[in-house]
Amino acid sequence: MTADPDAGAATRGPAANAELALLLEVAGTPKPGNVDRRRDFTDLRFDHFLAGAVGARPGLERAAAGAPVGEAFELAVEGMSEQSGGNTQFGCLLLLVPLVRAAAAGDLTRERARAVCAGTTVDDAAGFYRAFERVDVSVADPPADAEELDVRRGADAVPALRERGLTLADVMARSADGDAPDANAREWRDGFPRSFRAAEGVLADDGPASDRAARAFLDLLGEAEDTLVRVEHGPEVAAAVRDRAAEVEDLEAAEAWAEELVDRGINPGTTADLTAAALFVALERGLSV
Amino acid sequence: MTADPDAGAATRGPAANAELALLLEVAGTPKPGNVDRRRDFTDLRFDHFLAGAVGARPGLERAAAGAPVGEAFELAVEGMSEQSGGNTQFGCLLLLVPLVRAAAAGDLTRERARAVCAGTTVDDAAGFYRAFERVDVSVADPPADAEELDVRRGADAVPALRERGLTLADVMARSADGDAPDANAREWRDGFPRSFRAAEGVLADDGPASDRAARAFLDLLGEAEDTLVRVEHGPEVAAAVRDRAAEVEDLEAAEAWAEELVDRGINPGTTADLTAAALFVALERGLSV
Repeated sequence: MTADPDAGAATRGPAANAELALLLEVAGTPKPGNVDRRRDFTDLRFDHFLAGAVGARPGLERAAAGAPVGEAFELAVEGMSEQSGGNTQFGCLLLLVPLVRAAAAGDLTRERARAVCAGTTVDDAAGFYRAFERVDVSVADPPADAEELDVRRGADAVPALRERGLTLADVMARSADGDAPDANAREWRDGFPRSFRAAEGVLADDGPASDRAARAFLDLLGEAEDTLVRVEHGPEVAAAVRDRAAEVEDLEAAEAWAEELVDRGINPGTTADLTAAALFVALERGLSV
Repeated sequence: MTADPDAGAATRGPAANAELALLLEVAGTPKPGNVDRRRDFTDLRFDHFLAGAVGARPGLERAAAGAPVGEAFELAVEGMSEQSGGNTQFGCLLLLVPLVRAAAAGDLTRERARAVCAGTTVDDAAGFYRAFERVDVSVADPPADAEELDVRRGADAVPALRERGLTLADVMARSADGDAPDANAREWRDGFPRSFRAAEGVLADDGPASDRAARAFLDLLGEAEDTLVRVEHGPEVAAAVRDRAAEVEDLEAAEAWAEELVDRGINPGTTADLTAAALFVALERGLSV
């Protein structure tokens, strides 16, 4: 929903919708391989995701107020990390922060989202790198010629960023290409095609928002390999998970598979990120809860 | 936790802790008779509580910034109500708003909380009455001589409030006494004894925060009749529920009873309010998630 000047201060704005998207995403069940309303991992539990979403809100508010993307993202990740479970929503926030900034500027469109990403600076890239110091994030190894830009170096990589004049959009474009393309980076590069398409599916769906979230997750998982699964388990497992997801008929059929993926330690995390982004777009476009 | 000036903008402040308390409360399971992580009602679902908590945040932030209690409460209820399930957290917010204001003023103590309540004005009472226009709340019938102060009259009752010079503390004191004392009003009148005592139990407990929430709920339910159960089902049912809760050994034993209460439509809502207040006090005093 866009801001209605007559609706009063309490109307849910983009930052609140983004936080709600994080909560509905983790509430959606079953989301095979992920923490959800019915499943905890041993050290990463539903409670951690609740605290992560609450903690991210100031950074999301900063984005809604028009702050630079890197600054808002770093603050959101800092707040998200104030819980003991580790990384809960880093990837979600990487998608949500530019989307929140775009939504705060007017009706949320792919064009506005693309413009926010295209307008990022080297400072934004530095904020993104600093955010990696807040929490352990699973990422692919960089190419041999790009070790000095490995995100795991955190702030130590900032001089190299500045020397090369790389904006956050440039950093994302590098991760979107190559042998191991990152699904979130592709959203950044291409104007969030999967997030917006999945949002249309959420809006066209029926039933409670968190059930729609679970179905959107399955649809997204069936349409492309999950980046985190590929990083952690290799391309063959990622392809097999994608193919299996494409065959799942409904949430009931996904239940048994959900247990299996948790048991095997297979966690389609990037698909959860996309699901949160799709929920946010849907909330901005009128999804009611 | 109290505000740490060195901790940066992202440190969870009282408003964030209050929102997190709302989320951990509804996540706690089993909470017999209530929506929880495992149970939805037909028209009132987990999703509605997530949206209610997110929507309440601006009002909670207003309280943390030192706004009058009535103004902050009205805004919190307005935001909470932006979902289609109806009343999710009205009673929780009635306890949390003064507690947030007290926590924002320094270490959260019963003395500070009592002082916030004692300092309320007739305007605060008017805000409280106006909040009833946002959402349907189950309350007891007023005494025959107090019909003009029936909270269900909403803003129409404000002239009578002003004529009698009743502050919000006065309104609460009236509901705390008599044949059908309101448990939340008693917390207001008496400096939140049950909320703080239950918080000590939460802090002394082990395990995930939402499991502690469920155990705190059972302890609170076993120590006194639930106001909402008494309003909706009468004093005998309320006493029977209290006695049964006092006999429940652990969360596992509570599971079957949880189903039974939902089936009978018995909803110990005031006990859930107290649980949220206890979680907030515990979070402010160092409960980590």
